[in-house]
Amino acid sequence: MRYLATVKYDGTRYAGYQVQPNQMTIQSTIEAALQQLHKGAAVKITASGRTDAGVHANGQTFHFNSSLAIANSKWKLALNALLPDDIVIVEIKQVSEDFHARYDVIEKTYKYVIWNGADANPFERHYSYHIRRPLDLALIANGCHLLEGQHDFTAYCAANSQVKGSKVRTIYQAKCEQQGDYVVFTFTGSGFLYNMVRIMVGTLVEVGLAERKPETILTSFEHLKRSDLGKTAPAHGLYLEKVGYPGDKV
Amino acid sequence: MRYLATVKYDGTRYAGYQVQPNQMTIQSTIEAALQQLHKGAAVKITASGRTDAGVHANGQTFHFNSSLAIANSKWKLALNALLPDDIVIVEIKQVSEDFHARYDVIEKTYKYVIWNGADANPFERHYSYHIRRPLDLALIANGCHLLEGQHDFTAYCAANSQVKGSKVRTIYQAKCEQQGDYVVFTFTGSGFLYNMVRIMVGTLVEVGLAERKPETILTSFEHLKRSDLGKTAPAHGLYLEKVGYPGDKV
Repeated sequence: MRYLATVKYDGTRYAGYQVQPNQMTIQSTIEAALQQLHKGAAVKITASGRTDAGVHANGQTFHFNSSLAIANSKWKLALNALLPDDIVIVEIKQVSEDFHARYDVIEKTYKYVIWNGADANPFERHYSYHIRRPLDLALIANGCHLLEGQHDFTAYCAANSQVKGSKVRTIYQAKCEQQGDYVVFTFTGSGFLYNMVRIMVGTLVEVGLAERKPETILTSFEHLKRSDLGKTAPAHGLYLEKVGYPGDKV
Repeated sequence: MRYLATVKYDGTRYAGYQVQPNQMTIQSTIEAALQQLHKGAAVKITASGRTDAGVHANGQTFHFNSSLAIANSKWKLALNALLPDDIVIVEIKQVSEDFHARYDVIEKTYKYVIWNGADANPFERHYSYHIRRPLDLALIANGCHLLEGQHDFTAYCAANSQVKGSKVRTIYQAKCEQQGDYVVFTFTGSGFLYNMVRIMVGTLVEVGLAERKPETILTSFEHLKRSDLGKTAPAHGLYLEKVGYPGDKV
């Protein structure tokens, strides 16, 4: 049987999502718990995609196969009992054998959290990016608007990216809201290139500090040059919020 | 010159507030930063009181003496530059030579945060106490009301407490609010005994789960027995919010 799981994790302690030799990763930690549940037999999990070191998730997804006779309602409890407390399974459900957690994705939502207080916040040091100076949300809204739609996001891709093929993606929604001393970005799109959200945020922060005109975003879609954009915002403000699949698949 | 500092800290990494041999504490960390600022000369700090291992602060206070020629406006920046990022000085101001951060306290406010979601929250594991079952806030409000006023809180004192003298304290306000999936307690009082807030919360949680009648709080003021009350709630949900001094002192 194939299962689809939704997982929240605090990425602070992990060297990212994907298994790497001699590193503690989200994937290896979940696979170790599944292996324990399967009495030592290895179980591979396939996620919607990777997240970097320090990046968090509220709704990452992965699929795996299992022939264990565990009632659907007990899967979540069984796995959470074996996971460390910075990784929490929110839901596990059975899906069809041809479901694929990565290939079937139709949209993803990322959140990026900024702590925009004059003083640093010790409780937010791993969970948001501290910007001391006030951000102009109206300027940022202009920039967000220009990101929406279908564009070639080549300029928004880390220099060392291995992505092949088209770098055209569609952003369905890009928004930014003030929530007390927090400024929270939300991006929903067809898919995101490596570091794309962090480069969008780094650029929009410069827009919000009036260090950069929102129109540089238009230029970036023409020039396709990374150097036209702002610096990459740090990993620890980023959250994979939600992964969307077609209704008939899940 | 004597200075009064207000400090926020994430207590997760620390063995509590007070200096202890071979342990990393809030006090020893701040004293180390002050010593660095004073070119190696030791500087003792005196706080409003101790906090336990894992307990946090949004507004702990301490005083210290210094003859350094640092402008009042620069003290905070100078000290924050030398502190780790889980300890943040919010304010430093000059006070009179006879000000005392502990003896001059007239009231303290503590906050206690409960994560009351069905699922554990990986981002809250060090910052709130997870109670899975819904809490009845109306029952808790009854309990809070009974705690308010002047009472003998002997029963609300850790068994190993070294407190001498009267255990009569006055609670000016005890309240409990739902904030989304959080349940947040706030207690303001003339002073608090060792573990008193955590024992009040542990007891009120049992009241909110309908496992204990609010009236046991009345009984506890008569019997003065720790065993009449609920278990001590964990340290990591507790925050020292604010320390109050007479207006002419600060």
